[in-house]
Amino acid sequence: MNPWMKEACNLAKEGMKKAEGGPFGAVILDPEGNIIGKGNNQVLSQKDPTAHAEIVAIRQACEKRNTYDLKGCTIYTSCQPCPMCLAAIIWANIQQVYYGCTKEEAGEIGFRDDQIYDFIKEKKMDLLRFEQIDHEECQKLMEEYVKNGGVIY
Amino acid sequence: MNPWMKEACNLAKEGMKKAEGGPFGAVILDPEGNIIGKGNNQVLSQKDPTAHAEIVAIRQACEKRNTYDLKGCTIYTSCQPCPMCLAAIIWANIQQVYYGCTKEEAGEIGFRDDQIYDFIKEKKMDLLRFEQIDHEECQKLMEEYVKNGGVIY
Repeated sequence: MNPWMKEACNLAKEGMKKAEGGPFGAVILDPEGNIIGKGNNQVLSQKDPTAHAEIVAIRQACEKRNTYDLKGCTIYTSCQPCPMCLAAIIWANIQQVYYGCTKEEAGEIGFRDDQIYDFIKEKKMDLLRFEQIDHEECQKLMEEYVKNGGVIY
Repeated sequence: MNPWMKEACNLAKEGMKKAEGGPFGAVILDPEGNIIGKGNNQVLSQKDPTAHAEIVAIRQACEKRNTYDLKGCTIYTSCQPCPMCLAAIIWANIQQVYYGCTKEEAGEIGFRDDQIYDFIKEKKMDLLRFEQIDHEECQKLMEEYVKNGGVIY
């Protein structure tokens, strides 16, 4: 078994034992192969719906490296990332993902990963109601940001 | 202008002034109409790629209510949520989203919201490399979680 995936699984197991959250773990390696972030699902213990294994690991790695940019890093995660974690991985500029289980398997045990993918793919539209309001006023924020030379990341 | 969207815009403006991050703000209301979470993009100041306005607001609301479950709550956000924030909103069980700008407009000023949507919709596949490994070992985690009656959220 890949040693980093093994570590991700061990993190998941430890978290499960402590009832911190679902059966998910993740490890982030820097380009030199050093572990810079570890995480397990902590939704229950942190009472934070965003505390998925990958997010916990990304936040730890960013804190350690003192940057929001993990370019060149690799993530090992025990399950295919949900859309939240997948987008977080892209925002962090991680470029390689190794995963174990699939989102369909997460769905089979009751998690909504697959449903959220379907919502984003516009195949399942009853998870959430969406309405656009006050468009012009909000546009001004973007204009102001660009005008002031705001950083794009 | 809707007062909650106005508040979301004000949060975005304040954050921009302090160079905390992009031009994005969000407010969460409980079912009684009380503000329980506020956020602006803090990716730059927190050095955290997950510190989008909606995520910051969700984490604050969950801390305030001491739960990971924001069922019945509403979010006002100055821009259509990126896939990370959209999935976080669904994981938090928020059911109504009011948004101002679109993801295409975020894309026009240089943010990758739209590209990440395309990646998830399997239209743009060069953002990230994916590889499945150690499937069986990872499956055991899920089996163990189910066997032990783990909470599904």
